[in-house]
Amino acid sequence: MNDFLKDGKELFKHLNQYVAVDWDEFEEINSYFELKAYKKKDFLFRSGDLCKLNHFVVKGCAHMFFVDDSGTDRTVQFAIENWWITDHLAFQKEEVTGFHLQVVEDAMVMSIDKARQEELLLKHPQLEKYFRTIYQIAYGASLMKMKYLFGLSKKEIYFHFVDHFPGFAQRVPQYLIASFLNLTPEYVSEIRSQKRS
Amino acid sequence: MNDFLKDGKELFKHLNQYVAVDWDEFEEINSYFELKAYKKKDFLFRSGDLCKLNHFVVKGCAHMFFVDDSGTDRTVQFAIENWWITDHLAFQKEEVTGFHLQVVEDAMVMSIDKARQEELLLKHPQLEKYFRTIYQIAYGASLMKMKYLFGLSKKEIYFHFVDHFPGFAQRVPQYLIASFLNLTPEYVSEIRSQKRS
Repeated sequence: MNDFLKDGKELFKHLNQYVAVDWDEFEEINSYFELKAYKKKDFLFRSGDLCKLNHFVVKGCAHMFFVDDSGTDRTVQFAIENWWITDHLAFQKEEVTGFHLQVVEDAMVMSIDKARQEELLLKHPQLEKYFRTIYQIAYGASLMKMKYLFGLSKKEIYFHFVDHFPGFAQRVPQYLIASFLNLTPEYVSEIRSQKRS
Repeated sequence: MNDFLKDGKELFKHLNQYVAVDWDEFEEINSYFELKAYKKKDFLFRSGDLCKLNHFVVKGCAHMFFVDDSGTDRTVQFAIENWWITDHLAFQKEEVTGFHLQVVEDAMVMSIDKARQEELLLKHPQLEKYFRTIYQIAYGASLMKMKYLFGLSKKEIYFHFVDHFPGFAQRVPQYLIASFLNLTPEYVSEIRSQKRS
């Protein structure tokens, strides 16, 4: 097994959580992607770029963010192993993005452009179900996030996240979780050092 | 053409924006749905209910919301003609929802349960592409909403929405747009009566 296929194994496993893909079919699917290694702080795209690629994180961690008026990075989405990340609206419409996509630790990423993805979906239509399910869950989760952001206190927001997504809380840098939850890193440090009650 | 098919025509047109469905196929697709008329303030589900149905609004307007600690309705999603609405995460997982879904004006709604939707997608696999695209756009738009909510001033948030979605701004009750944008109806009245600058 060459390195690409070895890394592709993560996507193979992920696909099989939602649809049934055998290894032969996967080798064909895998050939649609480009695998690339990124160093910490590398950008996959910047605000103002045409959003051409959809990305699947095989290893490492990436976040998509914008910079607010005060110069602070504001994370709207992050991805660790087995997560897709891009500006999905700009990717769908083949438009310029208003976000930055950056890796926060060394990463291996499989990427595919819009035309190749359309081709892949035509050739392997069961991947429509895979992406439909991924997007349905992502959209549903974003509505839940709205509920927590606007229905809970800052402290509750943080501990709700930590309790419900312990895997993320341990895996993702604290400053990134803070930004994703619309909290400051200082505030998160403070409540982490306090008791919960 | 019976009334159900007449109302179903909206879904027929919407499907054909994303995939190619002829009328014969649509008649079969249509038979998977239940069409129901709702009066203003009727609930399609309430917090604590098992979320069994996905809904397509043919006529009227509905919103999904939760009630915050102060007793205020907080809208996370709304739907006018040709929009899907449900608690997508709870629907996918067949779980209890923490949201209410209520119509805000008399409405006609086509609904389908999870098992029937799975059956429909197996029988008409091109609908996977339709739903994949719908969810991809909805998820992408929710990331954009995060950007506006956390990157713009309250006034900018409101006018950005009005400028970018004039159809909604005219169509949807102001109190609902205010809630969706995390603003109070009083604040929206105030800035609407002022000049923009």
